Amino acid sequence: MGSEGVANKNNSVKLNASETKGKTITCKAAVAYGPGEPLVVEQIHVKPPQKMEVRIKILYTSICHTDLSAWLGWNEDQRAYPRIFGHEASGIVESVGEGVKDIKEGDIVVPIFNGECGNCSCCKSDKTNMCESFGVNPMKKVMNNDGTSRFSTIDGKPIYHFLNTSTFVEYTVVDSACVAKLHHDLTHSLKKLTLISCGVSTGVGAAWNTANVHSGSSVAVFGLGAVGLAVAEGARARGASKIIGVDINPEKFIKAQEMGITDFINPRDEEKPVHERIKEITEGGVDYSFECAGNLDVLREAFLSAHEGWGLTVLLGIHSSPNLLPIHPMELFDGRRIIGSVFGGFKGKSQLPHFARECIHGVVRLDNFITHELPFEEINKAFDLLSKGKSLRCIMNM
Amino acid sequence: MGSEGVANKNNSVKLNASETKGKTITCKAAVAYGPGEPLVVEQIHVKPPQKMEVRIKILYTSICHTDLSAWLGWNEDQRAYPRIFGHEASGIVESVGEGVKDIKEGDIVVPIFNGECGNCSCCKSDKTNMCESFGVNPMKKVMNNDGTSRFSTIDGKPIYHFLNTSTFVEYTVVDSACVAKLHHDLTHSLKKLTLISCGVSTGVGAAWNTANVHSGSSVAVFGLGAVGLAVAEGARARGASKIIGVDINPEKFIKAQEMGITDFINPRDEEKPVHERIKEITEGGVDYSFECAGNLDVLREAFLSAHEGWGLTVLLGIHSSPNLLPIHPMELFDGRRIIGSVFGGFKGKSQLPHFARECIHGVVRLDNFITHELPFEEINKAFDLLSKGKSLRCIMNM
Repeated sequence: MGSEGVANKNNSVKLNASETKGKTITCKAAVAYGPGEPLVVEQIHVKPPQKMEVRIKILYTSICHTDLSAWLGWNEDQRAYPRIFGHEASGIVESVGEGVKDIKEGDIVVPIFNGECGNCSCCKSDKTNMCESFGVNPMKKVMNNDGTSRFSTIDGKPIYHFLNTSTFVEYTVVDSACVAKLHHDLTHSLKKLTLISCGVSTGVGAAWNTANVHSGSSVAVFGLGAVGLAVAEGARARGASKIIGVDINPEKFIKAQEMGITDFINPRDEEKPVHERIKEITEGGVDYSFECAGNLDVLREAFLSAHEGWGLTVLLGIHSSPNLLPIHPMELFDGRRIIGSVFGGFKGKSQLPHFARECIHGVVRLDNFITHELPFEEINKAFDLLSKGKSLRCIMNM
Repeated sequence: MGSEGVANKNNSVKLNASETKGKTITCKAAVAYGPGEPLVVEQIHVKPPQKMEVRIKILYTSICHTDLSAWLGWNEDQRAYPRIFGHEASGIVESVGEGVKDIKEGDIVVPIFNGECGNCSCCKSDKTNMCESFGVNPMKKVMNNDGTSRFSTIDGKPIYHFLNTSTFVEYTVVDSACVAKLHHDLTHSLKKLTLISCGVSTGVGAAWNTANVHSGSSVAVFGLGAVGLAVAEGARARGASKIIGVDINPEKFIKAQEMGITDFINPRDEEKPVHERIKEITEGGVDYSFECAGNLDVLREAFLSAHEGWGLTVLLGIHSSPNLLPIHPMELFDGRRIIGSVFGGFKGKSQLPHFARECIHGVVRLDNFITHELPFEEINKAFDLLSKGKSLRCIMNM
């Protein structure tokens, strides 16, 4: 089946690669011009993919908290405008640049912000999913290949890239190391598979790959946004017997119960510190705790909630405070451990195709995470929903 | 072979248990009366072991840095006098209290400061060597059983215990959870096996159990005292191909070479930070780094010396500074990990007997660690040697 056929049949999307290949495409993007300013949906130019690059027609994209904080420009060092945010998406390959062997026109793909070049010492190691060439770098704003951008405004001003991906656009260009190819029989499910491009993989993978949550174990999740709920979903899938959700927003509990959370703690309702409450209901602490709030006080509670001797705290939250880890060195002798998890420990290019299958087979229930759908033009509304804590994931159809 | 026979034949020690059993023993001890004051070698009284306790005739003891810092009284909260320090020793069981089934009069043993009750959740887990009842607690100064001491001065004043052990005395009383019984055919080797009671097990075990150093790997050891050298010896035994020793004392390099250190870095000779030098000579960092200095700046260098993505830093040094871990939360996303190691991760009672055999079979070379021998009466001289960095281990014959 040809690529155009796949796209036409299943997504009602016209992919006229024969007309666009090798040419600059003019298409719609949501461009950021300043911190916190509403994105401007406008026509831009997208150059053809260069050596080892892939041009993707984005079919669906959604918004993650990393987009939100980048849009707000919290970290001044990372500001660069105009820029196209977005890193959670799915799409179909429009064309590939010189040297790309593993991906071809018409393939269905998800972009991966944490790339996998396959050649560096990290990619060659089975102990990490880092990549020395295409790792997460919020400062990066151009392509590795030539240090320039593939996007420009209609009047020719360069538009910067974001997180190896930039998905708030109809056509994006990414390095081939930052694309996971999915099996063509998953084309029907591409909308929901958008979520494995970041949030769900990050949370489920933290439970599966980073912590290796075991059946019958106890888990505490601090912060019940999409990533925290994905941790809970991953722990549930692994057979954890107690999954404690901690959040200051009691509305989160309704969704959390669907995701496998067995106990809910609202710190504002407790007289004692959360870790003491957790110790009481778990015979001394949980086997695994996950910090998904990006708050140092929460991090310390998560650390102390883990059982002495073996409890593991996994850090997922983004900590913009300059303060150091709120842990004294001698506290490590209590046998608690703390580690960070990026993209759930998944090697995107090589492991996401299998993970996508597991999701579609129902091991992980993606549908629960989709709370809203909007047309791409209403992207600013989608940002608003996320920033107010009203959506988990809002899928935008391109 | 009877217990008296074992002791008489191999150690020329008379164990007249039939005369002493159930009675208070008057014997020699080195008693601490104040922080940093010379120990007073004098006669004291040692009561019989109570329920689940064991009275041990100490044959050899040595001094570790924990004794040194406790003697100096660095931590005011932990001061208690008069007190008998010492926790690295070997001996023969004089008598046992009610209920002790696994140890009997005449057994050769080493005391273990990190006990193993066998019944708590930690002892029942294979993930930790902590013990909820007999863990390391420098504040503890009396027996668990009845909250009193088994030692007293000749005029009846109680003398406090230390670290579940107190070995600077001819007869000590410890809980049976704090005794590892060695096979009687190791009696000849009891002098050198004194070292597995703390320092060597702590270092070798950190490499074997905590880090699980693998053949062909790269290792950096920060601080080349006895524990640091034991880490190096453990890494050498595991087949590490590069073992980098870091110390500001160039004299340490001579001994370090015997222990398997392949490269030596003196931070005072380097223009750049040690971690940058280590990255240069290891293609990006070591697989394992060990902090054995108890210094936060050193800890940070050790952390940064580990390879991104998988490098593991093991904390062994005692950090008396109130400062927190010098690591920013976001740095954990670089994939480096840090964990603490207590007693090398060994479950003392159940694992030291086998470890003792491995040492005697030459897997670990204990002899290299014994730099001095002195009679017990010269214990203050032994303290002086250690505090001046002149000895690794000074064995005192009782």
